[in-house]
Amino acid sequence: MDQKIISTQDLAFQLYELHGAEGLLRFARYRDHSRDTLDAALELALKVAAEEFAPHNALADGEEPRFEDGRVVMRPEVGPALKVLAETGLMAAGQDYERGGMQLPVAIAQMCVGMLKGANVGTQGYAGLTIAAANLILAHGSDEQKARFAEPMLAGRFFGTMCLTEPHAGSSLGDLKTRALPQEDGSYRLSGNKIFISAGDHELSENIVHLVLARLPDAPAGVKGISLFIVPKFIVNEDSSLGPRNDVALAGLIHKMGYRGTTSTMLNFGEKDGAVGYLVGEPNNGLAGMFHMMNEARIGVGLGAVMLGYTGYLHALDYARDRRQGRPLGQKDPQSPQVPLIEHADVRRMLLTQKAYVEGGLSLCLFGATLVDEKRYAEEASDRQTAAAMLDLLTPVIKSWPSQFCLEANSLAIQVHGGYGYTREYPVEQFYRDNRLNPIHEGTHGIQGLDLLGRKVSMQDGLPYKALLVRMRETLAQARESALLADNGRRLAEAVDTVEAATKALVTRRNAGEVDKAMANASLYLEAFGHTVVGWLWLRQGLCAEQGLAEGGPQTEAFYRGKLKTCDYFCRYELPRVQALGSVLVSVDATTQEMEPDWF
Amino acid sequence: MDQKIISTQDLAFQLYELHGAEGLLRFARYRDHSRDTLDAALELALKVAAEEFAPHNALADGEEPRFEDGRVVMRPEVGPALKVLAETGLMAAGQDYERGGMQLPVAIAQMCVGMLKGANVGTQGYAGLTIAAANLILAHGSDEQKARFAEPMLAGRFFGTMCLTEPHAGSSLGDLKTRALPQEDGSYRLSGNKIFISAGDHELSENIVHLVLARLPDAPAGVKGISLFIVPKFIVNEDSSLGPRNDVALAGLIHKMGYRGTTSTMLNFGEKDGAVGYLVGEPNNGLAGMFHMMNEARIGVGLGAVMLGYTGYLHALDYARDRRQGRPLGQKDPQSPQVPLIEHADVRRMLLTQKAYVEGGLSLCLFGATLVDEKRYAEEASDRQTAAAMLDLLTPVIKSWPSQFCLEANSLAIQVHGGYGYTREYPVEQFYRDNRLNPIHEGTHGIQGLDLLGRKVSMQDGLPYKALLVRMRETLAQARESALLADNGRRLAEAVDTVEAATKALVTRRNAGEVDKAMANASLYLEAFGHTVVGWLWLRQGLCAEQGLAEGGPQTEAFYRGKLKTCDYFCRYELPRVQALGSVLVSVDATTQEMEPDWF
Repeated sequence: MDQKIISTQDLAFQLYELHGAEGLLRFARYRDHSRDTLDAALELALKVAAEEFAPHNALADGEEPRFEDGRVVMRPEVGPALKVLAETGLMAAGQDYERGGMQLPVAIAQMCVGMLKGANVGTQGYAGLTIAAANLILAHGSDEQKARFAEPMLAGRFFGTMCLTEPHAGSSLGDLKTRALPQEDGSYRLSGNKIFISAGDHELSENIVHLVLARLPDAPAGVKGISLFIVPKFIVNEDSSLGPRNDVALAGLIHKMGYRGTTSTMLNFGEKDGAVGYLVGEPNNGLAGMFHMMNEARIGVGLGAVMLGYTGYLHALDYARDRRQGRPLGQKDPQSPQVPLIEHADVRRMLLTQKAYVEGGLSLCLFGATLVDEKRYAEEASDRQTAAAMLDLLTPVIKSWPSQFCLEANSLAIQVHGGYGYTREYPVEQFYRDNRLNPIHEGTHGIQGLDLLGRKVSMQDGLPYKALLVRMRETLAQARESALLADNGRRLAEAVDTVEAATKALVTRRNAGEVDKAMANASLYLEAFGHTVVGWLWLRQGLCAEQGLAEGGPQTEAFYRGKLKTCDYFCRYELPRVQALGSVLVSVDATTQEMEPDWF
Repeated sequence: MDQKIISTQDLAFQLYELHGAEGLLRFARYRDHSRDTLDAALELALKVAAEEFAPHNALADGEEPRFEDGRVVMRPEVGPALKVLAETGLMAAGQDYERGGMQLPVAIAQMCVGMLKGANVGTQGYAGLTIAAANLILAHGSDEQKARFAEPMLAGRFFGTMCLTEPHAGSSLGDLKTRALPQEDGSYRLSGNKIFISAGDHELSENIVHLVLARLPDAPAGVKGISLFIVPKFIVNEDSSLGPRNDVALAGLIHKMGYRGTTSTMLNFGEKDGAVGYLVGEPNNGLAGMFHMMNEARIGVGLGAVMLGYTGYLHALDYARDRRQGRPLGQKDPQSPQVPLIEHADVRRMLLTQKAYVEGGLSLCLFGATLVDEKRYAEEASDRQTAAAMLDLLTPVIKSWPSQFCLEANSLAIQVHGGYGYTREYPVEQFYRDNRLNPIHEGTHGIQGLDLLGRKVSMQDGLPYKALLVRMRETLAQARESALLADNGRRLAEAVDTVEAATKALVTRRNAGEVDKAMANASLYLEAFGHTVVGWLWLRQGLCAEQGLAEGGPQTEAFYRGKLKTCDYFCRYELPRVQALGSVLVSVDATTQEMEPDWF
């Protein structure tokens, strides 16, 4: 298959050699599966991505959806691609058989969507949001809601959205104002305005199922007074036929820098008599329901960032091998032939940086996805709890690290292409624009930092955090015995020590009541923590590759050598960043806090 | 004047308190000028920028120039804005009186164009290129060429271009193939294809003057066989009326991620009987002529990056003061009012980072611009030589550092805006797209690294480099005596030591014949060097602000306090990056070189 979405060799290495995805098949839920069925699903997803999604990626970016005569008009290729996807059944890849699903492990189901993200993140948006919304209904809805809404969504007949943000309430969700009035028939009537609703309107599916956060009358203020509702675009009758149009109006489209294929909308609920909605789960517990799914959603964001970085890297690699420009530094003869870009050390450095970021990010996301499976399906309760806690701890890292560094990879992919990379005649500039969304949505970078430092490292008396340190130190012990990796291990040990010192200093200060000072650099803490975790995963990749080389593992020698050298790169070039951040963190520097607003 | 292009207080501080721009008026060339005339020119440029250029910035980005029926069609606002600019005489701000110019110092003339860049870099492109091309003709052309081409350019009647790149020869200019055949009348006939020619075609001016690099018959291969030609779109008759269309055809427009208002074209020269051209300067010496102007062109690129970062910062600052979102960390009452974004420490950190980058970058560019004046007009030959050498040394830094870090500032401006920042309904996303060009054009980041490490630090037996170290150490000595800045000085001293150690290690290795190994991390060397130079300029800004505070200088106390705190920020948060890079550089790490192409 001709595709520049992912290295299937890397994916196989990471899934099976590094993260032991076959081990997940021991869980009862997956007993029908084998490596072959997992690979078949991945191959199918990659084929759909490469053949149905990638070809119109630039077209849909260039002609973004328009609002004409009250309708959303978009490129004609989008609908058919989503139809092919729905027909494969991949939208329900992770779901129960009884819901029409394939019951594939979360890591595999996430990767199936990941392929689509790498191919065409805009078109993928409709599918990805639908899967997320259906999952939420399946987790918290009534049986009737599951059958009436979630099942048609997983079959691709209905698409879904998540309606959280309002014009005055973005990161501060507790301030949202949309109202829901209870009706005698048990339903509700919603009224309010939502903004940045991705896939909020289109004509790609028979119906659109909005999941809307709103307040009941007399609900408490803030996040404890938010409830979750299903609000369909068209009322769904009991016989599952479609009834009249609900009172949900498209107020306008928002025009984004990237991710243009996915409509971003302003929606008005209840302009006339109120939009009919159905409560999902308990009253005033809507945010908890939403956040219950947040770990998976945030892995999805991280993986999306990885896949955009990954496809950019593969395009840059291809270009650097193909394009001839310039000569080696020592070559003085201007008539000697030009050499491929990859022969230049600086181009190789940029490729190596991209490889380190995207393969490191992939490792992080796959690790997170396997934790979701373990937390749900491991046989021992203690294993489930351990996995759940580790996942909670790492979720802000999984969301943020790829969003920051795989965006940087996209910038380097442009740089490798030179002037061509800056033009829309080549695809890398779109990946860069698309990826710039990821540090913003599903909780900004800053909010992830507050989550990690303010909540996650201290939860359960810091046990999950300490468990992570123990796991990292186990890997360090292995590295000490390694001929090729002992030096890298020493470098990672320094980073781990720095994170530990920073955590201690900041948490101590916070517990002493200096909350603002301790939290002022939470974003930088997140970056230091993230680089250390990814350094750990790179050291594990290095150890795995060393073993593969020694024992004649399934990959090529060149592949394993490349992994080892990229591990070197990460430990030598990237981990020093942790020390640089550490100097600010360990000293609990308060410069940013001391800067008065009127001094700017 | 309502503008978010620059802080006029910062500009005054930097020009007059820090860089002593009034001191330049001692040169004979500037004897008619005073601080008042300099300020009047700056104010005029800012007014034109804010009133004529800024209002159509987003419009011209949204409707980029189109190629219709062989013509370039663009937004109607572009032409009138350029006409107003030409009428002010600012296009000749730096030129001799006898050429219709204002004979303003280079720093002032550059800032006048800089204002336009911050307001609307796309429309500015036509003016900026015209000024650069006219300067080149004035420096190397015959008197007849100056009168026939350069003067109408500076008056805004003719616009100019620089035609260097060919499809197979971008960074590797020596490989260009365009041919020039001598004719009996002393002119030449050119044929060949050029690509990425900014402002290569349009109907904004009476004529377009292309400066074209091409080869004479039997020219030596490589960069030593390149000559420079004037090739006008319309032949200019001896009486300066316009003659027939020359054989230069627009082959197509290139579509860019940003900088969309400036057409980027493919031009075919000599499709029919050869394009009429006129040799500028000596045969085979065209690249030297072009590079003679390169210092100024590269300051222009650096300043453009600064100004895009600067306007983004001012927009983000305004938004952060205005937009209310969330509450302080300790505030548990959800009914308490939301606070302005600037109250959040992480937002303040992002604003402080932007301020440090854009004001640091501005300082760097203005320092470079004053060196241009000193190198040209200082009375003592030795002063001219010292300034010329310092400028040569710093040119790659001046070009690259702002291109890297003010782009990062633009990313942070988006982040401060949250979801709104990612939409085209707000201006910051455009600044980010526009600025992404700067690390690519006028010599990529990688090429600047090779220039600095491979040539500049070692030129003249390293004397200019050592002179820079001496100047930095003088500032460090001053800081040791300062109550507020001694600690920052210690931090900068570490960075200077690291750069010195890295330079020694790398140059020693290069001189020992290990050129590839020594040069493999030249880009990272450039970054460490740049951060140290900007750190030095921040320490100087700090010292200057301390003095201003103590002596009741012309700026407000809040302004000086902000400068001091931003100096703290740069030394504490940014300089540790130099140590992180130093670990790779001092050890002459060869990882990127050892990575084999087929291991990717």
